[in-house]
Amino acid sequence: MDPRTYAREQRSRFLEDLKSLIRIPSVSTLPEYHPDLRRAAQWLEQRLRALDLRAWIIESDSHPIVYGEWMGAPGRPTLLCYGHYDVQPPDPLDEWESPPFEPTVRGDNLYARGASDDKGQLMIQICAVESWLRTAGRLPVNVKFFIEGEEELGSPRVTGFIPKNKRLLRADVSLVCDGSFFASEVPALVTGLRGLVYTEVEARGASHDLHSGIYGGAAPNPLEALARIIAGLRDRRGRVTIPRYYAAVRPPSPLEREAWERLTFDDKAYFAELDVDVAPGEEGYGILERRWARPTLEVHGIVGGYTGPGPKTVIPARATAKISMRLVPDQRPKAVLRAFTRKVAKLTPAGVRTAVRVLSLADPAVVAPEEPAMRMAARAIEEVFGKPPVYMREGGSVPVAAEFINALRAPAVLMGFGLPDDRLHAPNEKFHLPNFSRGIDTVIRFVELLGEQAPQG
Amino acid sequence: MDPRTYAREQRSRFLEDLKSLIRIPSVSTLPEYHPDLRRAAQWLEQRLRALDLRAWIIESDSHPIVYGEWMGAPGRPTLLCYGHYDVQPPDPLDEWESPPFEPTVRGDNLYARGASDDKGQLMIQICAVESWLRTAGRLPVNVKFFIEGEEELGSPRVTGFIPKNKRLLRADVSLVCDGSFFASEVPALVTGLRGLVYTEVEARGASHDLHSGIYGGAAPNPLEALARIIAGLRDRRGRVTIPRYYAAVRPPSPLEREAWERLTFDDKAYFAELDVDVAPGEEGYGILERRWARPTLEVHGIVGGYTGPGPKTVIPARATAKISMRLVPDQRPKAVLRAFTRKVAKLTPAGVRTAVRVLSLADPAVVAPEEPAMRMAARAIEEVFGKPPVYMREGGSVPVAAEFINALRAPAVLMGFGLPDDRLHAPNEKFHLPNFSRGIDTVIRFVELLGEQAPQG
Repeated sequence: MDPRTYAREQRSRFLEDLKSLIRIPSVSTLPEYHPDLRRAAQWLEQRLRALDLRAWIIESDSHPIVYGEWMGAPGRPTLLCYGHYDVQPPDPLDEWESPPFEPTVRGDNLYARGASDDKGQLMIQICAVESWLRTAGRLPVNVKFFIEGEEELGSPRVTGFIPKNKRLLRADVSLVCDGSFFASEVPALVTGLRGLVYTEVEARGASHDLHSGIYGGAAPNPLEALARIIAGLRDRRGRVTIPRYYAAVRPPSPLEREAWERLTFDDKAYFAELDVDVAPGEEGYGILERRWARPTLEVHGIVGGYTGPGPKTVIPARATAKISMRLVPDQRPKAVLRAFTRKVAKLTPAGVRTAVRVLSLADPAVVAPEEPAMRMAARAIEEVFGKPPVYMREGGSVPVAAEFINALRAPAVLMGFGLPDDRLHAPNEKFHLPNFSRGIDTVIRFVELLGEQAPQG
Repeated sequence: MDPRTYAREQRSRFLEDLKSLIRIPSVSTLPEYHPDLRRAAQWLEQRLRALDLRAWIIESDSHPIVYGEWMGAPGRPTLLCYGHYDVQPPDPLDEWESPPFEPTVRGDNLYARGASDDKGQLMIQICAVESWLRTAGRLPVNVKFFIEGEEELGSPRVTGFIPKNKRLLRADVSLVCDGSFFASEVPALVTGLRGLVYTEVEARGASHDLHSGIYGGAAPNPLEALARIIAGLRDRRGRVTIPRYYAAVRPPSPLEREAWERLTFDDKAYFAELDVDVAPGEEGYGILERRWARPTLEVHGIVGGYTGPGPKTVIPARATAKISMRLVPDQRPKAVLRAFTRKVAKLTPAGVRTAVRVLSLADPAVVAPEEPAMRMAARAIEEVFGKPPVYMREGGSVPVAAEFINALRAPAVLMGFGLPDDRLHAPNEKFHLPNFSRGIDTVIRFVELLGEQAPQG
């Protein structure tokens, strides 16, 4: 039987499988979910073993890694499949139309936290491998699975793990399914990823909280200090004010820029999706270029003071802001972090002390469309979806992809089956079910094309 | 028996009484404590009835008011005693050395939420009245109690209640025990209170939360917008930038300023208390004047985005900042609110919409030291504490005191028995127990002096 026929027949079972995985609330950023992360890892280990892969859990300082391999094609290329089983917190809960961890089909979509990011896309790869093994009894290439549980934390330890385990992970190509189409009917391949520097800036004023009536006007206010720092980190033209922040930015190649121009990005549709009139950002660049090829700086949350209902007249002793920077080639995270730390110190008003803590660092990365693996991926996509993919960059960071490229020296094929309106990290995340099936077909075909390559060293 | 002798004999029972009231966690800003607010009101109603006062609970839209009266001195003045039974939230809980609602004596202090603000000071008045009634069988003046449960909310409804219930509350003098000494051995009377405009500024960007990797650099960020607004509300010299904000500010009289100069305020001790090197604020004014006679603007909390542990790469759809202004005579809260709202609109960056909600408004107020009631209060204080009080202003707002002065046209005697290091609104709030006893003696004597006045119309 053709693996694609098998996949079609198993469609509803594959969906039930995905639902089972989604029901495990594997939120990596919150300690109370840690047992669920382990359950998710064990579920995946069992799932791979059921396919007769050698699979085991690798303990790390943080959440377990699931490793699996099928090495029955000696002399053929090895494909390293990547996905992550951890998800973002579901809050704010009251904005979900169905419970975040009770996967619910409405229309063509499956709604749940993790449906698109990344459990649906992880299961695409597992189901494609199953479809080969249950029909041909073998795969045309060797396959390794590297599945992590701390991607939503910025993969802080996993990126250290990869360079130290080059032998285990050695591969000719890596496949990262953790992204999305360019538009609803426009499949894409990713040629660049932004890097990340994610920090917490803590501001401290008095040694204890103060009554704002009694002390207001003659005491340091750490919240106001953070506001001044945040406001000072970008100028009126939307440019980040950190010295030499843009010095290492490599402009997109003329070829890449030309490909983007053909994309006919629809500003109006983008405004409509966000329900805004303007898309504020760095002056002088289009929306796509700002998201793909320009670095940025964003605030994610401010902790401190009184945030309950009603008034409380307190000047807090300390407050913390979560601030991140997205980087592009050839910015270096550590250099940016140093310059950021100095800038924050400069912007700190008198009476307040600040400290910068790093929560996550990731390199930016690029992959050329001319890579053979990229051409095979493009062909598989075109055959299944009836149109060639466009080449785009990814504004987000996939730290492991940068490691695959830099440490394993294996080109990374970033083939995303999400849609731009999947509401990743937000309430009512969903996954487009037709893309679940077609994604499985695409990976089946990609594996086949890879196997037709000349035998490897 | 002299009422003071009685009070001394009853000291430990009075303390147990206070502890019972403190154990009721009557936090007015959090809905889960609402039943406790009612319990506290009922406890006080019973406490007043046990003294043979006519007492009852007055239902309001918010937390109940406790009213009580002893009108057995016809022709004599009527004193309106004020206190509030609600308290601030106890968070952050882990910084308390003993549980916030388990009153604990350490050394000369009673530690608990509400010990100083305001349950201890409310009980001073009740115990003073008891001491008269249980010894002389009568009071030298008529007494009314007006005890509210929403002071920590800024008394939003109570201030409307007072002008509508002038007959019930009619009095010649009001006594407000909800403040503190100038310094540990320096009793004080308050000649001015700051007013308050407490707002919530909501900023809205996109219609839903966005992934900062995908959208960062080309989307409105409401948290950044709030940071810009907050940073824009004060200039580099610490002055509030709202147009004409300072136009109505009445400078302190030469007499008042002279009295303050004699206070020999110790900047160094203030820095040590706060554990800071500088006390940021409006340039050109001393610390005392900035806290007592200059208006200010403070941020109390920012809600929105991700505030849990670890990184979450979200651009929130909306965020809210709690921002308040303290006003001085003759600023008018409503006019300030209008100007603030216009300024916030002006400071709002493109792509973000803002709205200002009012949570609390209070007039500033002044009372002259020359008022007869103020002179009697000064005399009572001097007799009990062995030194005359200093005249100070209060940086905080006591909205009802402003109403007593403005609507009831009764001079308000603000006689506070707290100490400046009582950590109001913060962890480890405490009340100095010697001041509890001496406070009762002072009110006993104040009532006596009031009763010696010429009979009233």
